[in-house]
Amino acid sequence: MKAVVLLSGGLDSTVCMAVAKEQGFELLPLSFNYHQRHNRELACARNVADYYKVKRHLVIETNMEAIGGSALTDNSITVPQGDIARPDIPSTYVPARNLIFLSYALGYAEVNRAEKIFIGVNALDYSGYPDCRPEFINLFQQVANYSTKAATQEGQEISVVTPLLHLTKREIVQLGSRLGAPLELTTSCYQGGDAACGTCDSCLLRLKGFAEAGISDPILYSSTRSE
Amino acid sequence: MKAVVLLSGGLDSTVCMAVAKEQGFELLPLSFNYHQRHNRELACARNVADYYKVKRHLVIETNMEAIGGSALTDNSITVPQGDIARPDIPSTYVPARNLIFLSYALGYAEVNRAEKIFIGVNALDYSGYPDCRPEFINLFQQVANYSTKAATQEGQEISVVTPLLHLTKREIVQLGSRLGAPLELTTSCYQGGDAACGTCDSCLLRLKGFAEAGISDPILYSSTRSE
Repeated sequence: MKAVVLLSGGLDSTVCMAVAKEQGFELLPLSFNYHQRHNRELACARNVADYYKVKRHLVIETNMEAIGGSALTDNSITVPQGDIARPDIPSTYVPARNLIFLSYALGYAEVNRAEKIFIGVNALDYSGYPDCRPEFINLFQQVANYSTKAATQEGQEISVVTPLLHLTKREIVQLGSRLGAPLELTTSCYQGGDAACGTCDSCLLRLKGFAEAGISDPILYSSTRSE
Repeated sequence: MKAVVLLSGGLDSTVCMAVAKEQGFELLPLSFNYHQRHNRELACARNVADYYKVKRHLVIETNMEAIGGSALTDNSITVPQGDIARPDIPSTYVPARNLIFLSYALGYAEVNRAEKIFIGVNALDYSGYPDCRPEFINLFQQVANYSTKAATQEGQEISVVTPLLHLTKREIVQLGSRLGAPLELTTSCYQGGDAACGTCDSCLLRLKGFAEAGISDPILYSSTRSE
């Protein structure tokens, strides 16, 4: 029983690894080097994969930054600071990223006869990206069922599992902590320094989650704002 | 008015370029170097893009072959020869390939504010791949409408256009010829030699199309079978 786990090296995907592990799946972590602003994330993904002693950690290399249009892949666009309540989709949105990631995961799951794809999307405490919503996941599942040889010829459908979809960041931290996920190996910061910045959207969401869970965040921050 | 065109360098995608051009779109061709068995295809794509004097031809580099499972990316799997009537999905199927290609195209279209994505899938004279069927395209369109910032926030949906979906290979050859598509710059062969092999599935379909159209195929073959 195998599961492909989309592993970014962040908090959410690492908690997903822990959930898939607890459910007894052999873990097939899949990460992407898409020339994101920093490679710290990928280093974290490698450490998390090592922690779980996986047989193989597949890293897809792709020049996705050539598409442009995101603060996460284009150094000329500024990463927004500390405004997680605004209504629009922020500049850190990477066009079609989750669709691209899930598509690779589907092919990888098919080749390895994995039954599930775990993805740590979250529809509550998130940055407002369209491709994190439940409707998106449901529609992806439908197209997936028409895409593969496995589903078409052998009736073996591959399900997308989203264990964090309806959890708050507090609940995600609590779940990860309960399952012994190596949260100390993760990063969430968009800036990617040796220490997390503590002020970008992603750091703010993470810090809020740990604070509300009453758990101390084990990673290093260069600065934190009091709320 | 812009259109992303998925351009493999084969007959079908080149006819798609011609259709998009005739409809007055500024062409944004998108190709993939996915470590396919041979790079001849990509060279053809570059020549076709040059022919149409496009501003930019984006080539996405990706180690998709690391996923495995296809004769087109894995040299240890043999390319099947001359059996286009068999019922199963052949070993040249690349898991989730069209889903991955369309996902990148969607992101590229979004960033460039293109209205359309042209893809040369065909549901008649094709190799039986699941991700060439109309249901697949319809479902992709639905997930696309939930994926992008453009559709979600600005109501600007990006449509997937499939001008060849219900054409026979004969009709595709005739259409390309009528529109002046540079068919002499294309390749269809799975083997990727300097001359097309004339015996793989893809060569057989192409040769049948030209023969039925009563048009001489302008590319070089190393051998051809009489039907």
